[in-house]
Amino acid sequence: MKARAAVVLCGSGRADGSEIHESVCVLVHLSRLGAEFRCFAPDAPQAETVNHATGKVTPGQTRNMLVESARISRGEIAPLSELSEATYDAVIFPGGFGAAKNLCNFASKGADCDVLPDVARVIRAFHDSKKPIGACCIAPVIVARVLGTRMNGPGCTVTIGTDEKTAAAIGTMGSKHAARGVTDAFTDTSHLVVTTPAYMFDATPYQVFEGIGKMVEGVLSQIKVK
Amino acid sequence: MKARAAVVLCGSGRADGSEIHESVCVLVHLSRLGAEFRCFAPDAPQAETVNHATGKVTPGQTRNMLVESARISRGEIAPLSELSEATYDAVIFPGGFGAAKNLCNFASKGADCDVLPDVARVIRAFHDSKKPIGACCIAPVIVARVLGTRMNGPGCTVTIGTDEKTAAAIGTMGSKHAARGVTDAFTDTSHLVVTTPAYMFDATPYQVFEGIGKMVEGVLSQIKVK
Repeated sequence: MKARAAVVLCGSGRADGSEIHESVCVLVHLSRLGAEFRCFAPDAPQAETVNHATGKVTPGQTRNMLVESARISRGEIAPLSELSEATYDAVIFPGGFGAAKNLCNFASKGADCDVLPDVARVIRAFHDSKKPIGACCIAPVIVARVLGTRMNGPGCTVTIGTDEKTAAAIGTMGSKHAARGVTDAFTDTSHLVVTTPAYMFDATPYQVFEGIGKMVEGVLSQIKVK
Repeated sequence: MKARAAVVLCGSGRADGSEIHESVCVLVHLSRLGAEFRCFAPDAPQAETVNHATGKVTPGQTRNMLVESARISRGEIAPLSELSEATYDAVIFPGGFGAAKNLCNFASKGADCDVLPDVARVIRAFHDSKKPIGACCIAPVIVARVLGTRMNGPGCTVTIGTDEKTAAAIGTMGSKHAARGVTDAFTDTSHLVVTTPAYMFDATPYQVFEGIGKMVEGVLSQIKVK
């Protein structure tokens, strides 16, 4: 039977949603490895809309995470509220600033960040069911927060590149940082959390493709055969 | 010296701009093969904005091709008016409905379509300079039109999947259709035009990745060493 993976998006663009290269690389590798997938996103407004050509926030323009994420998923998408760990073997969170602005508010609150209730529910449900969780770029901070000891979790170990401030925040959350390069991934075998730094580095698209390939392979390898 | 490729985008999303998977696959393969690239897009409004979750046009919402394309290029982008064949070794057009609605109006006018002047200029300039042109999905119709005998060109041969109506339109334009599968690419060695059908088929992301890999390899292989 084919593995089934849920991919959680939060918009379409590195500065206000899901990082597009990372999201596409996740889907390409899932299909390369013969896994089925479905994309999910919160049916709610993005925190902001950013003009990616100038890097500046576009005032007064509201975009919906689910509607914009459907650009990446090519139409097929479901609200995150409908994602149940009972139906999928694994869940993967691509990065992008949206992971730190839409799915949680790490971008403004750091280690004390709040996580969208549906995101926290999904991470806890997959973890409790011993189903693997993948994440890349900045998205691992969400997993580190939800499973961290300060939220009464067990703590987990994730990659975040080499950004010292972010690594320190992960420690404050009660999780741990594993330094890895852009073409590597790290598997926390105790908690089935697989992460790769991706565009936390100033990397080429192919380096990100390689690292995400290892992350997706790691996620699929942690699925328990029923 | 590294090959330098220009990639022409026209928005970010299969239904109203550049197909995101195809665009990212082009960039991943260019970087895999050691080529440098820069993305370009017309600094002009898209023909329309489509809600990709519902497939319906969003009335009254104007999005700019260059601004939206910068989501795919991660910020670095230049107006298509600045693209000169003198600076690049090759040009590549990813697909998506935007190629048939924004870069030309093939979606509404078929074989009689008008092509954006800057797009026609770029195709003619690269062709005249014997520099290769790559395209995938529906974008090959633009090359078939500009280089077709009805526009006083030499005619060229391109892929378009298996859609008979589109293949017939290519014939009417004074170019030719080559039937190829999604994981294949076709090189018109007389005119240095390299194309692959990509999402003209109901394909998986990895199949599209494979076909675009062959297209990009074909484009780079046609660059004449100076």
